[in-house]
Amino acid sequence: MQHTQTIRVRYSEIDAMGTYYNSRALDWFECGRTELCRTTGIPYTQWEQRGVMLPVVEAHVRYLGKAAYDDVLKVTTKAVMTGRARVRFDVDIEQADSGRPVCRGYTIHAIADVVGRPIRPPQWVVDLLTEPDRSEG
Amino acid sequence: MQHTQTIRVRYSEIDAMGTYYNSRALDWFECGRTELCRTTGIPYTQWEQRGVMLPVVEAHVRYLGKAAYDDVLKVTTKAVMTGRARVRFDVDIEQADSGRPVCRGYTIHAIADVVGRPIRPPQWVVDLLTEPDRSEG
Amino acid sequence: MQHTQTIRVRYSEIDAMGTYYNSRALDWFECGRTELCRTTGIPYTQWEQRGVMLPVVEAHVRYLGKAAYDDVLKVTTKAVMTGRARVRFDVDIEQADSGRPVCRGYTIHAIADVVGRPIRPPQWVVDLLTEPDRSEG
Amino acid sequence: MQHTQTIRVRYSEIDAMGTYYNSRALDWFECGRTELCRTTGIPYTQWEQRGVMLPVVEAHVRYLGKAAYDDVLKVTTKAVMTGRARVRFDVDIEQADSGRPVCRGYTIHAIADVVGRPIRPPQWVVDLLTEPDRSEG
Repeated sequence: MQHTQTIRVRYSEIDAMGTYYNSRALDWFECGRTELCRTTGIPYTQWEQRGVMLPVVEAHVRYLGKAAYDDVLKVTTKAVMTGRARVRFDVDIEQADSGRPVCRGYTIHAIADVVGRPIRPPQWVVDLLTEPDRSEG
Repeated sequence: MQHTQTIRVRYSEIDAMGTYYNSRALDWFECGRTELCRTTGIPYTQWEQRGVMLPVVEAHVRYLGKAAYDDVLKVTTKAVMTGRARVRFDVDIEQADSGRPVCRGYTIHAIADVVGRPIRPPQWVVDLLTEPDRSEG
Repeated sequence: MQHTQTIRVRYSEIDAMGTYYNSRALDWFECGRTELCRTTGIPYTQWEQRGVMLPVVEAHVRYLGKAAYDDVLKVTTKAVMTGRARVRFDVDIEQADSGRPVCRGYTIHAIADVVGRPIRPPQWVVDLLTEPDRSEG
Repeated sequence: MQHTQTIRVRYSEIDAMGTYYNSRALDWFECGRTELCRTTGIPYTQWEQRGVMLPVVEAHVRYLGKAAYDDVLKVTTKAVMTGRARVRFDVDIEQADSGRPVCRGYTIHAIADVVGRPIRPPQWVVDLLTEPDRSEG
């Protein structure tokens, strides 16, 4: 399962060095997860309604290049099952026009019920996470 | 009721112009409200446990000067009842060393129950909000 | 001059009450300004290259309704000259599907040179700010 | 070199699940770096004035437990040289009262000049980063 989208860098995301502040990468990773889930036909809001939550248990980012205010970034997100009750979202962010790398990383999520206890993933979750790639643009 | 505290500007709060990004002022106003409530003896976490919430209904900020990374700011917060079921927090932020003004403004809050419906403020709330000034250093 | 766009609420923008944290409104106001400037043909990045900056001197927000994670908001931004060297951006944010109001307010900006000194606005700025409305669907 | 400090969780840092939003961990890591640098006698603002910058090249976080609004967290930061021109800050965040773990991770930074080019670290940097531990209560 894979999805590509674009996001535009906000002034509020830039720091005194003129590039995005390091924690913003994780905000963008979330935008990637959100849109990836939507393309499956089951937006993440509905995952929660169905009793499945994906609390983050680990995050990793490699910072590869600058991104200034108003730059358009191409965000590519892939999801894979990892172990029995975890999912990993791999995210690759680059400048949309030049393809110059901006950052790359992943978040690992537990599959949990609404009170946060780990659960064995329902079949619809497994099915979604093993579907073929979906991309826009 | 009045309270003074200091906060240190984070790198994540600075934008490409080398001063704090405008929305951070409202984050700092919240720090002011939090500490003002604590000095009354009833931290805001306990307000919520007692069934009283203070959703923001209005905010105003005047930007008066710069604040760079690692600057120490002096935040002075006052609370006043306004109308029958509202409280206004007036906040004044200046450079701690020079007294140079940074920003000034207020937030107005409804007094509401846990589902957000306006309520007549309980007596302990009225009492708190009409107490004399409390300041730290 | 007027512009309408949509933005989707991020998980990172929601607080413990399940609605957007109050300072996020100002982040969204910035998205409105950015896109309004772009529709004039001169993106804000080029304003800065031409030696004109728009530091925020005042902000006001009225909070009118909730907005949850993944909601799509319709952001309408208007710019007007105010006084000789200031511009005000009026922003109206509502739920895109229902039209239910979310927040409304404005920011007032000085027109300044690159070191932040107020300047008389160049003619191209005055022209831009007095142009007829521009909207995207 | 090691430093311990406390920070209080802001309402703006909490998300709809009632715990800190995942990217805030990296904001707190920055607070740790800032105070660790200060305890050396050379605050990070002076590093930049001396021509040395520490751009983040990698970040890693493991999320270990919840942290709610107004919780006081104990942040312990250690710095170590890694390779010839990099420094790693290891950060451990736990609940100040109970010692319950909140998150743990690191950031790796290049040692660079003011335009971002990697440099061999000046001797004062090496000296600082190999000094014995410094802690505040």
